Amino acid sequence: MAPQLDGYFSQVDALSDHFIDRLAKAVAIPSISSDAARRPDVVRMGEWLAQELKALGASVELRPLGKQPDNPSLDLPPVILARYGSDKAKRTILVYGHYDVQPAEKSDGWATEPFTLTVGDDGRMFGRGSTDDKGPVLGWLNAIEAHQKAGVDFPVNLLMCFEGMEEYGSEGLEELIEQEGKAYFADADAVCISDNYWLGTEKPCLTYGLRGCNYYSVEISGPGADLHSGVFGGTAQEPMTDLVRVLGSLVDTHGKIQIPGIMEQVAPVTAEEESLYDNISFTMDNLHESLGSKTTIFEDKKSTLMGRWRYPSLSVHGIEGAFSAPGAKTVIPAKVIGKFSIRTVPDMEIDKTNEVVAKYVEDVFAKLGSKNTLKVYPQHTGKWWVASPNHWNFRAAGKAVERVWGVQPDFTREGGSIPVTLTFEQATGKNVLLLPMGSSTDGAHSINEKLDKRNYIEGIKLLGAYLHYVAEEEQA
Amino acid sequence: MAPQLDGYFSQVDALSDHFIDRLAKAVAIPSISSDAARRPDVVRMGEWLAQELKALGASVELRPLGKQPDNPSLDLPPVILARYGSDKAKRTILVYGHYDVQPAEKSDGWATEPFTLTVGDDGRMFGRGSTDDKGPVLGWLNAIEAHQKAGVDFPVNLLMCFEGMEEYGSEGLEELIEQEGKAYFADADAVCISDNYWLGTEKPCLTYGLRGCNYYSVEISGPGADLHSGVFGGTAQEPMTDLVRVLGSLVDTHGKIQIPGIMEQVAPVTAEEESLYDNISFTMDNLHESLGSKTTIFEDKKSTLMGRWRYPSLSVHGIEGAFSAPGAKTVIPAKVIGKFSIRTVPDMEIDKTNEVVAKYVEDVFAKLGSKNTLKVYPQHTGKWWVASPNHWNFRAAGKAVERVWGVQPDFTREGGSIPVTLTFEQATGKNVLLLPMGSSTDGAHSINEKLDKRNYIEGIKLLGAYLHYVAEEEQA
Repeated sequence: MAPQLDGYFSQVDALSDHFIDRLAKAVAIPSISSDAARRPDVVRMGEWLAQELKALGASVELRPLGKQPDNPSLDLPPVILARYGSDKAKRTILVYGHYDVQPAEKSDGWATEPFTLTVGDDGRMFGRGSTDDKGPVLGWLNAIEAHQKAGVDFPVNLLMCFEGMEEYGSEGLEELIEQEGKAYFADADAVCISDNYWLGTEKPCLTYGLRGCNYYSVEISGPGADLHSGVFGGTAQEPMTDLVRVLGSLVDTHGKIQIPGIMEQVAPVTAEEESLYDNISFTMDNLHESLGSKTTIFEDKKSTLMGRWRYPSLSVHGIEGAFSAPGAKTVIPAKVIGKFSIRTVPDMEIDKTNEVVAKYVEDVFAKLGSKNTLKVYPQHTGKWWVASPNHWNFRAAGKAVERVWGVQPDFTREGGSIPVTLTFEQATGKNVLLLPMGSSTDGAHSINEKLDKRNYIEGIKLLGAYLHYVAEEEQA
Repeated sequence: MAPQLDGYFSQVDALSDHFIDRLAKAVAIPSISSDAARRPDVVRMGEWLAQELKALGASVELRPLGKQPDNPSLDLPPVILARYGSDKAKRTILVYGHYDVQPAEKSDGWATEPFTLTVGDDGRMFGRGSTDDKGPVLGWLNAIEAHQKAGVDFPVNLLMCFEGMEEYGSEGLEELIEQEGKAYFADADAVCISDNYWLGTEKPCLTYGLRGCNYYSVEISGPGADLHSGVFGGTAQEPMTDLVRVLGSLVDTHGKIQIPGIMEQVAPVTAEEESLYDNISFTMDNLHESLGSKTTIFEDKKSTLMGRWRYPSLSVHGIEGAFSAPGAKTVIPAKVIGKFSIRTVPDMEIDKTNEVVAKYVEDVFAKLGSKNTLKVYPQHTGKWWVASPNHWNFRAAGKAVERVWGVQPDFTREGGSIPVTLTFEQATGKNVLLLPMGSSTDGAHSINEKLDKRNYIEGIKLLGAYLHYVAEEEQA
């Protein structure tokens, strides 16, 4: 199958310096979407990307998204919509990525200049955006170029959607995807997103599930203004006293959620699923390394993977309105807002979850007998996503992995949410595949973000091979 | 007794515009001690005060205190030490006050310019520092001047200690007082501090007790760095989960401290004390007004006053290291530091209290079965203070109140701490009296700080009358 890949692969190897140079050019543009002062760089990055696509023969549109809601004087960067090929005899694959990056300063602790791609002798290529998500985005462009230079026919029509606000809430993107689902994206047969990571460092994976996230605020207020604890301590009921009791009732040290009606919604483990975990390439050592400690809830791989992928978790993130600086301040805060979130899984429902959370928090608070005032409300909610790993889109990707890496991929889920996944699924009605390029040690949002040269170059081969296999794969 | 007071009082009334003008000049100098950029204004204020004292015939020293520990390029403002009179036949009274103020900006919500004394038709004099503590400090100077102009012999030798860092931790003062206890202050027979407030708005009080304060940090850490709750929620034991459980175990909504060994140290209520509370001029309406709500622990005056003055209280102030901004962030904080403090009362001991707090927190944490790491330690501690309200220093002040205000004063304590009180008592070995000038609605650290003209002018009479009575009062 797909014998033409040999020529393509050789061409990718031959062009590898050129592809690394292209990544270096992209990393050099500090397209930090969360920093208003960097907005011109984000726009410049989008325009550079559009120019590269045009030079490869793609048709490109820069779609404006209007003003940024929380900063109405600021234009959102454009979404790059592009099409390469429109042969009705071929399948059409829609790919997504983002060209903006997280903030980075050398002084944060980087060993190298964050906006200079620095390739070490060991093949590690350091730079902000190298793995998240400029490497994967350029992977698609590189695949096109290598096909052209190898004289290999491009196997599919490629639709591309590259945004510039992913690291700041993908502002405006959801509406655009919904609107274009039956327009610009109308002929898409399947969707592929390369914006996540291998579970470890050695074995590729295909990702078929994501947890959702319901994020809650618990607001407790009493006095008209912040008070001095010397004057009012012992005479006023204190909102913080109530709040730490409420927050302390949500989950225990071992991750057990105390809210009735949460675990009851979780889909039971099937025998088929049960057998999945043992073969996954992951060890407790991997977890200890990425955690930087051994403070895990479980001691075994299977419970750990299930805890991350298929069970809900509850985290308390912090408190707004209380004293949070170093040092000592004898304040009784008048109004405090606790923040916590629940990672959701099949078959949890957003509304049902909101309901049991509100009821539980209100019940706990009622038992305190406090005169203070409680409000509990979701700040945002996002559904979990699970695709069928037996869909032809996944089967094709599995064959591509085997061809490029010589192993069958792990089928994994992610504990976090990638909301755009569900948006694409709902807007197009097509299967969505997550096909990662980087590995678990890339440090996407950390200092010293990197992409291994091997993952980049073999990743370009993988994206191209996937397009060949997905062009041929039987629908059944 | 003290018939010469009539002439003094008339003179104070005659000079009242001049005294208000003097306060206006002092308020006009923005001597904000916490703002490094305002340090020259603090120094200017100290120099102005020294000049006023010299003009009245006092001998004055500006004592340098060296550099500010947390900002070593910055000189601390000088302490003004002054003496007026050195007649060995007279008693010597040491008074303390401070010439620095809290920050204030019109944009904070002030109705008037904070550094322009603005006298309303109702006699309320608005301005930063009017009541805290420039009004009382100038009260002593005005008393000297009115004696001179009335031709009334000044009844005591007056030692004065006015500092410029009270609103920023009285940096450097404790050492100076300890050092001068048997030197500059050697001949002091009693101490008087005018830097607190009436319990209400109508009845003067003398203050004979203050609670102490032990301030604690509880530090819980686990992972090597902050984590993403999508990736690690459900697999890592989270420090915040442990911390809210620990903080939630300390005190209940009704102010009941859950730590064994605290209440056991509290001195029992005597029959004499029991009878004290009923006559105190204070109502629950006063409390509701200053609280800005009705969220009180108790429904009656006596329990409320006891809760503020003679029982310990525990307040949870906040958490360092957790998410504290508005909005939503899905972080699992790697290290969080909870802050709480206990207001201490007779006969609680600092060391014993530290011991039972540490033991309790460690026990609660141990029961969680967490792999995270706990540290609990006091950030600072300060002892409570109680003087005898039957001492001749208090008896004299009581007579002065009766003479000026026509009522017997309430004998009150304060819930907060004024550490310098204990320092003066220990350094001089003499009785310390707190003799407030302002009332409970003055808003010392708030916007629209004010001093009522009545409290200022009658307060000047009160300070002078106190000096006459304290000069005569029998030691027994």
